[in-house]
Amino acid sequence: VSTAVVDLGGTYVRSAIVSREGEPLRGRVQQRTDHAQGSDGVIAQIGRVLRESVASVGCGWEDIENLIVSTPGPVTPQTGIVFSPPNMLGWNDVPLRSKLFELLHVPTVLVNDANAAALGEFYFGAGSGTRNMVYITVSTGIGGGVIVEGQLLSGPSGTAGEIGHMTIDRTGPQCKCGNVGCLEAIASGTAIASRFHAAVAGVESHEPAASVDTSRATAADVVRGAYAGDEPARSIFLDAAEAIGVGVVNCLHLFNPDVVVIGGGVSNAGPILFDTIDRIVGARAMPVPRQAAIVMKAVLGDDAGLMGAVAMALGRTPSASTELSGVDPKEPVGHGCADARPE
Amino acid sequence: VSTAVVDLGGTYVRSAIVSREGEPLRGRVQQRTDHAQGSDGVIAQIGRVLRESVASVGCGWEDIENLIVSTPGPVTPQTGIVFSPPNMLGWNDVPLRSKLFELLHVPTVLVNDANAAALGEFYFGAGSGTRNMVYITVSTGIGGGVIVEGQLLSGPSGTAGEIGHMTIDRTGPQCKCGNVGCLEAIASGTAIASRFHAAVAGVESHEPAASVDTSRATAADVVRGAYAGDEPARSIFLDAAEAIGVGVVNCLHLFNPDVVVIGGGVSNAGPILFDTIDRIVGARAMPVPRQAAIVMKAVLGDDAGLMGAVAMALGRTPSASTELSGVDPKEPVGHGCADARPE
Repeated sequence: VSTAVVDLGGTYVRSAIVSREGEPLRGRVQQRTDHAQGSDGVIAQIGRVLRESVASVGCGWEDIENLIVSTPGPVTPQTGIVFSPPNMLGWNDVPLRSKLFELLHVPTVLVNDANAAALGEFYFGAGSGTRNMVYITVSTGIGGGVIVEGQLLSGPSGTAGEIGHMTIDRTGPQCKCGNVGCLEAIASGTAIASRFHAAVAGVESHEPAASVDTSRATAADVVRGAYAGDEPARSIFLDAAEAIGVGVVNCLHLFNPDVVVIGGGVSNAGPILFDTIDRIVGARAMPVPRQAAIVMKAVLGDDAGLMGAVAMALGRTPSASTELSGVDPKEPVGHGCADARPE
Repeated sequence: VSTAVVDLGGTYVRSAIVSREGEPLRGRVQQRTDHAQGSDGVIAQIGRVLRESVASVGCGWEDIENLIVSTPGPVTPQTGIVFSPPNMLGWNDVPLRSKLFELLHVPTVLVNDANAAALGEFYFGAGSGTRNMVYITVSTGIGGGVIVEGQLLSGPSGTAGEIGHMTIDRTGPQCKCGNVGCLEAIASGTAIASRFHAAVAGVESHEPAASVDTSRATAADVVRGAYAGDEPARSIFLDAAEAIGVGVVNCLHLFNPDVVVIGGGVSNAGPILFDTIDRIVGARAMPVPRQAAIVMKAVLGDDAGLMGAVAMALGRTPSASTELSGVDPKEPVGHGCADARPE
């Protein structure tokens, strides 16, 4: 019997089977997320990628004992409901866990994607060997996961660790979440790109030093422009990096972690990001928590979420294993049940 | 054998003996903190108030098995060093635990005062019956303590939960701690009073609606002025209350607590404070963590810190009881040792 894991994202659906020996992820399958049929279409797609993973490791669906799914958006693990993730248009309060159970007939655990990535980095990546870690992923949005004495900080609704929705500028820009001056509204990849677009819009004389199509520039383009000396790109990226530094300082003061791990696409920006964070932390953080912590880049890349699910499958997180064994006993158990095979 | 508890503050030194039955605090003694001789003088004073407490319950110093001290300022429980608490002038890296041991010869545990108050409210006050609590004390400064699944969030240096030193306005006022735009720099009692002084300084026409001596107004005077319709007092207090609301929203998003408890002198401000917090939380917080939490006033008043020490003495906090039994075995144990009596 095995555990299947899924990393559901706005761009890709990935799946794999957890191996307890050797390579932890076997039968890896990746497809571009098909948003055409809304949440029901994506849920059917999860079934298809899982079937491929199971087949490719040479076992049958009846060998799958349970399923762990990393999902975008705030999610309440107890109810299995996913609340309007920003990268999944049309997803509003989707009862993902019960829908997956209807389709697959295996007990399923949901985990917020940033929390899953935090667990992955904690057990297998930049945080391994520590006890207290803050993980910040700077991507389309900004997510987070906090590990306190080896346990994922979850809270009664499972929504703790929303580091991207911490106000760092109380009179700052409106955030999509409804709050004001959130770190995400200032420093996410989306915010960096749109601030760049706004800065160069209508500026006829703007000749980017890098070969950037300014009207379609992504955050990665802004980073390239910043290194190439393009002035709007440089000042906008530095401001975002300073904001991330302020977020790190807040995390040092609130959580007193051993390590702060920065992941997500924007974490590939190199020294312009990490030198700026170091400067802000050096200037602003209180000495004791500053000296206790290091700030470093995530190491698992796109695998962080799946590896977090592996950690949960291996029982590395007591709260997760409670969840696994705490599935409603009235629900039929999937393994050994031929009807449970996804079509 | 008994545990003695001390609440060391910038204004008062309080002590008591923990009773395991009936009234939890017996032999209560309170003196104004005597700062004249610096930290050594205050430490000697702690010895005197403790001797009074012990005598008043009819036992001898040899009956005191251990001591728990709530102290201002960041403190590392492991080393027992107190770092420059803002209300204790001249205290810089005072090795309070070892100095108390030299004087009193009993194993001593130090706890940050806001953390102690958080434990008190969690076990005996506004947080009792919950699992996850954020405590914010708004007084001379702003302190905090966070309880996660029944455990005090501490961190490797013991400095977690510094909610007052969370930046909520990254271009805001400089804080004494070195950081910028901290909640404390905007909304502490000290900040409220000094912002009021600055607002009315040189304003000849300012006729306060309340009978406030504007040049010496305290935060409590500003609150009175705000209720009486004094315009500068009202706008400054409302701004501070909104900032506290922003801090509460951040705590909801980061910790997803069951309850947020507001203590400290400023928490006596009544509806002008709590209605403003509710308005900001209603407008800005994400629905799921908002619905999970209530925001309420602390209930233990000045006793919160001592009651937190009682919780530790009764072993309600596993980390604290580990600490109690984890005292260096090479150190002599105080109970039964006549030499240990403070002179």
